[in-house]
Amino acid sequence: MVRERRHLSPDALRALPVALDAMGGDKAPAEIVAGARRAADEGVPVVLVGPPELVGDTLGLDLIPCTEVIAMAEDPATGVRRKKDSSLVRSAELVRDAEASAMVSAGNTGATMAAALLRMGRLPKVSRPCIATPMPRPGRPPAVLVDSGANVECTPAMLVQFAQMASVFAAERYGSTEPTAALLSIGEEPSKGTPLVKEAHALLAAGVPGVRFTGNVEGRDLLDCPADVVVTDGFTGNVALKTAEGALRFAMRLVLEVLGRDEETKVAGDVLLPHLLGAAGEIDPEVTGGAMLLGVDGVCVISHGSSSAVAIANALHIAHDLAVAGLASRLAELIAEEG
Amino acid sequence: MVRERRHLSPDALRALPVALDAMGGDKAPAEIVAGARRAADEGVPVVLVGPPELVGDTLGLDLIPCTEVIAMAEDPATGVRRKKDSSLVRSAELVRDAEASAMVSAGNTGATMAAALLRMGRLPKVSRPCIATPMPRPGRPPAVLVDSGANVECTPAMLVQFAQMASVFAAERYGSTEPTAALLSIGEEPSKGTPLVKEAHALLAAGVPGVRFTGNVEGRDLLDCPADVVVTDGFTGNVALKTAEGALRFAMRLVLEVLGRDEETKVAGDVLLPHLLGAAGEIDPEVTGGAMLLGVDGVCVISHGSSSAVAIANALHIAHDLAVAGLASRLAELIAEEG
Repeated sequence: MVRERRHLSPDALRALPVALDAMGGDKAPAEIVAGARRAADEGVPVVLVGPPELVGDTLGLDLIPCTEVIAMAEDPATGVRRKKDSSLVRSAELVRDAEASAMVSAGNTGATMAAALLRMGRLPKVSRPCIATPMPRPGRPPAVLVDSGANVECTPAMLVQFAQMASVFAAERYGSTEPTAALLSIGEEPSKGTPLVKEAHALLAAGVPGVRFTGNVEGRDLLDCPADVVVTDGFTGNVALKTAEGALRFAMRLVLEVLGRDEETKVAGDVLLPHLLGAAGEIDPEVTGGAMLLGVDGVCVISHGSSSAVAIANALHIAHDLAVAGLASRLAELIAEEG
Repeated sequence: MVRERRHLSPDALRALPVALDAMGGDKAPAEIVAGARRAADEGVPVVLVGPPELVGDTLGLDLIPCTEVIAMAEDPATGVRRKKDSSLVRSAELVRDAEASAMVSAGNTGATMAAALLRMGRLPKVSRPCIATPMPRPGRPPAVLVDSGANVECTPAMLVQFAQMASVFAAERYGSTEPTAALLSIGEEPSKGTPLVKEAHALLAAGVPGVRFTGNVEGRDLLDCPADVVVTDGFTGNVALKTAEGALRFAMRLVLEVLGRDEETKVAGDVLLPHLLGAAGEIDPEVTGGAMLLGVDGVCVISHGSSSAVAIANALHIAHDLAVAGLASRLAELIAEEG
């Protein structure tokens, strides 16, 4: 049955709705439902999932009712195990049962991962699913950081699979024909880094199907990255991702403080602010649409907890497009090739 | 003899020069020598170390001649082993022999570490020296990130010592009376992170002399950090440090691009640029004076490779002050307490 689901035709997938966890995210349900409405108006079939009394007005969209919600701070494993009728678990089941083409949640990241993994299952031969997060590159498609938080402990073979899956994702999502992939380390030389990094380097340098390996990159390369895919373990990836986010927010605060300093800077700020916001918008996670869980048997988009309606609408578009493009099948094919 | 050197009186240390690797850094020797001149004019005794024919004009400062230089890209261990008459090795020897109070280099970081470790030696009971790097907090003294690159592989006990040493450093360098210390992880809960982080968390939470442990922080907290000291292994620390540097530089490029966009933004930019540069200056590694190698038997400042004269002068001031304050003795006392 799993096999058949993955082999649904593009037309069949196109007709299926994307399941959206209406209760996930700091701004749920209002912004989430508004994002769904927006995507639906733009042609993406969407179905909301959540307890009707909590979701409230669905703005005319279909709602699959459930009775529970896994909270943002709840322990993911416990939440998914106990709350079998939660919006997250039910969303994943809709994908499993081929009643939805994909799922999207801005809620508890760990629980989203656990629900997707437990209900959709892993793709054959995938050792561990991983989270791929877009990193901004102004003027060109984002680079993909993988794993940005799913697997705290990794083996070299896992990093190799992450590189493969993220390369397929970069090609499908951003149209890179031959995406390049690099390892995140603390120097460009193959001798730099932890044993994990050095062993993964050796494996990737020896040649891996679907991966165009270009060597190591450093933390300073993560934004406007020279490689299309950056591979690391989920601990380092999560620290690096949050450090980059924090530093950009820190810089923005400094700039805004300067603009508001006195009358003269305020006048100058009025001229510059629209431009600055435009530039900031280009690198905003709202626009990039969130992270993707790769390696599960279905499409699962993990949106930022602070997602607004715009971010949710973008995530729904991406989820729909990738489901129709057969992302899971493409990943399964490549990983199967190797064995 | 080692013991006696560490127990030199503040007056004796104050009279000794700081040894400065005249050939270290991207802008060596011109900016390095200029920085030395500047610090000397401000009352810091300095001695340059380098090959006279390469250093050139010493601007009236004393030069300890040597015959070799370890290049920026050279393998650290090999460089230090083979080039016994290099500016780096000789600088470390001057500290060892109590002919200098401290050493400063903007050169090859690994080689600086190796030279300091091999020539000065470790402090008693210190398992591994570590690199402490200041992280900007506008309006208050920087936080200290440790280890930012010396030890790629760490044990929980090593992280505990890093916390101790960095707490002494934060107190001596920034006058924090009871500096707080946090662990870098991927969530605030003690259950988050690698086994290394979780075990270090347990040890620190149980109570460690000289450390006021406040729990975990995340990557997003590294700039304007709530804790005075952030502890991590040298791989994660180096990735995080370089990610933060890269993100700030990326943000600055975006802002400058906006300022130069058209006639109107240029006029507004002329008003704002001095303010923006002022704000950037506050968080500039040039001002913070570079990183500190903690745990060796002497004071060793590792300046940024791109250091200008200003950065070098700052580093010399810091090295001198910390040597006079007896940093190495203070560290040795605290670490000895525990055994």
